[in-house]
Amino acid sequence: MNTTGQTRKEEIIKTAAKLFKEKGYSAVTMRDLAKALNMKAASLYNHIDSKQDLLKTIIISLAEEFTRGMETIKSSDVSIIDKLRAIVSLHVNITIHNTYGMASLNNDWMHLEDQLEYYLSLRKNYEEDFVEIIKSGIEAREIRDSNPEIIMFSILTTLRSLYLWLPKKDDLNREELAKNLGDVLINGINHQSITE
Amino acid sequence: MNTTGQTRKEEIIKTAAKLFKEKGYSAVTMRDLAKALNMKAASLYNHIDSKQDLLKTIIISLAEEFTRGMETIKSSDVSIIDKLRAIVSLHVNITIHNTYGMASLNNDWMHLEDQLEYYLSLRKNYEEDFVEIIKSGIEAREIRDSNPEIIMFSILTTLRSLYLWLPKKDDLNREELAKNLGDVLINGINHQSITE
Repeated sequence: MNTTGQTRKEEIIKTAAKLFKEKGYSAVTMRDLAKALNMKAASLYNHIDSKQDLLKTIIISLAEEFTRGMETIKSSDVSIIDKLRAIVSLHVNITIHNTYGMASLNNDWMHLEDQLEYYLSLRKNYEEDFVEIIKSGIEAREIRDSNPEIIMFSILTTLRSLYLWLPKKDDLNREELAKNLGDVLINGINHQSITE
Repeated sequence: MNTTGQTRKEEIIKTAAKLFKEKGYSAVTMRDLAKALNMKAASLYNHIDSKQDLLKTIIISLAEEFTRGMETIKSSDVSIIDKLRAIVSLHVNITIHNTYGMASLNNDWMHLEDQLEYYLSLRKNYEEDFVEIIKSGIEAREIRDSNPEIIMFSILTTLRSLYLWLPKKDDLNREELAKNLGDVLINGINHQSITE
């Protein structure tokens, strides 16, 4: 462990994610990574197998974190609107915690090799669960009767882009951001539609 | 002109945009482009100067189209909500018309060389105009009093991702899509907030 309590492996993963964000996965070499870590390339291989190994670790662990979050939200005994607010918070929290990793998830997933299918299945299930929540909200008349896929697309693209935008917004705390963003996404922005 | 009424140059631009989308700008060679067009690389240079020339044409013409659209919307004498609906339609129409170009705009703008500054200034002005419209809507109490930048971010990221999503939705016509998406973005999805 170093002074910040990270293991060497965690430090390598974090630095790799930062480099992947800055240069794109394809352009980063193990030599770049070793240099950024102030290590010899040979020592790097004591901790990890390959660049692909790092990408896999970064992306799959995030995708699984979203999957676990969605499972918890799905099975929670709250209103559909509160489930949607929980999804917004899930994205805000994961993105604040791991902005570089979220950039890899968004931009580099197609470079996954043997884990590509698995990643795509996690993503597909996540989107299907999301649409199901919206559909049950429409049935329960909690959500207005609009195209469920347009609603899902509209919310999810915003949440997936948070990594681009959050680092510039140091002045917002995460609860405030999740609350504001949830309001905009769920209640819209039309003043006429405020009911409270 | 060929049988579809496109000039040879238009055909080259369109094919380049398709290749840039599929492989990313950096990975596409003039040889790939010539092959896709069934031309000799040498003849390609009768029509265009370089790969950079193509990228510039694709991205700058789209960015200018958005700028002109925004100018028209800004100066139009309609409500703020209608201006926002017009922005949604602008993005839907441009994206339907040029899905591949929109992929380049989103993914390859950083590869622009001498036109990079110009592109960034167009984008910055567009975002500033967008925020100004939202702010005046909040002042006029047409838009609920929430953080104008969160509102802008939330709407614009959805609109910017349309190119990923539209090609899969052949069953939606563009008016229907613009209407639905505008409803979701402006009025939200909360059934409680429906006022009509």
